[in-house]
Amino acid sequence: MNVLLVYAHPEPRSLNGALKDFAISRLEGAGHAVKLSDLHAMQWKAPLDADDNLHRPAGARFDPSADSRQAYRDGTQSPDITAEQEKLRWADAVILQFPLWWFSMPAILKGWVDRVYAYGFAYGVGEHSDTHWGDRYGEGSLAGKRAMLVVTAGGWESHYGPRGINGPIDDVLFPIQHGILFYPGFEVLPAHVIYRTGRIDEENFGAVQEALGQRLDALATTKAIPFRRQNGGDYRIPELTLDPGIASGQTGLGIHLDHAQP
Amino acid sequence: MNVLLVYAHPEPRSLNGALKDFAISRLEGAGHAVKLSDLHAMQWKAPLDADDNLHRPAGARFDPSADSRQAYRDGTQSPDITAEQEKLRWADAVILQFPLWWFSMPAILKGWVDRVYAYGFAYGVGEHSDTHWGDRYGEGSLAGKRAMLVVTAGGWESHYGPRGINGPIDDVLFPIQHGILFYPGFEVLPAHVIYRTGRIDEENFGAVQEALGQRLDALATTKAIPFRRQNGGDYRIPELTLDPGIASGQTGLGIHLDHAQP
Repeated sequence: MNVLLVYAHPEPRSLNGALKDFAISRLEGAGHAVKLSDLHAMQWKAPLDADDNLHRPAGARFDPSADSRQAYRDGTQSPDITAEQEKLRWADAVILQFPLWWFSMPAILKGWVDRVYAYGFAYGVGEHSDTHWGDRYGEGSLAGKRAMLVVTAGGWESHYGPRGINGPIDDVLFPIQHGILFYPGFEVLPAHVIYRTGRIDEENFGAVQEALGQRLDALATTKAIPFRRQNGGDYRIPELTLDPGIASGQTGLGIHLDHAQP
Repeated sequence: MNVLLVYAHPEPRSLNGALKDFAISRLEGAGHAVKLSDLHAMQWKAPLDADDNLHRPAGARFDPSADSRQAYRDGTQSPDITAEQEKLRWADAVILQFPLWWFSMPAILKGWVDRVYAYGFAYGVGEHSDTHWGDRYGEGSLAGKRAMLVVTAGGWESHYGPRGINGPIDDVLFPIQHGILFYPGFEVLPAHVIYRTGRIDEENFGAVQEALGQRLDALATTKAIPFRRQNGGDYRIPELTLDPGIASGQTGLGIHLDHAQP
């Protein structure tokens, strides 16, 4: 497979840096082709702004989605954006690797999403009407590709457990796994989360590495998180609420999973 | 009150820009003192990296939390970070205003959190042991202050409803409201979310403005979201799981609310 690793840590000589190097080597060793977007090394521009559209009328009001749509359509996007979109088209699988900072991704990675996920590329795809609310959540430009998060966290696994104070890790990551990955079409594999990073030392690093290695070995075969497809009949359109006959009376993020999916 | 408005939108002539101007005027009209952090206008540096600590040994390995701790303690933080911490100390209430991009805040605002929330300031506060896991989630440096999100979203309210496809808005915002605001001590007011922004025009903008105005008028009196305090007896320490006697058998983000709070 072609694998794109999007990596966000400011220090190469870190746990994340070592795991990134290991991941590339493990994937290449298994015969995959790997491309790396090392966002700090690339000095990735994080803020989405008017400079992202190279050919705008001077003084024109900047509209994040209208400008993105026009620039994507007319080929006037900033070249760094276009290059990342090309990598995404090339990839069969995408891995986002980052330390969990404040229960989300580091700003530089969020800026990769904000800017690379253009209108017409990651949203605004397909018919938008009162009967079809776009090709999204299971359909879209990135359909057929797989995606996985590799996340490090200082806290304990129990802190992110079903009744842990930080919230269950799948709920904490829902805006990313469902909102950023499933939305434009990715099949999303369960996240690989490495907890209690402060306790990782030379002695146990081999085991930490090997656990990641096994997830990478299974990249093509791991069962995806069974998020419900928007346009598969489970949701009313255009309200986009789950059909009252499904998970009746229930609420919460878990209702957007269909455990009966094959 | 002293109110800090942290605002993240790249275009002043936008709905967000107009609402920001309105908010300042409404707050000042009510007698509050207002400071504004207009992150795009300030060209806020989003990525947290080694440059945030001004006095590091050349070539030293950068550790995000250890460097933050040392720089905060020794006064060697980048001055833009120190200035924002001063504003937070000054404020009685903090408003974060932003468009919801990919179910979270824009990168530039995440970078404000990543960098301003230093070790010793927003985390790593208080005793950390097996019997006291820091002054956080209801305690901490920002305790006694109020915070509120003002968020614009293109989607419909039903898309973010209890059974909406995007997830309930309170769950989508949990990593921010609980993880970023409640964590260092803020009392968190319910978010003011403005949906379906594409339908806002000159005709209905007055009503949109007035709805925000009423929330701002009630900034000092609105009841906070009743998140459970970490050190109030509801959680086991150090596992930080909710006591089995509370919300027995239940999981999900809602269990971290105590509706019996006064």
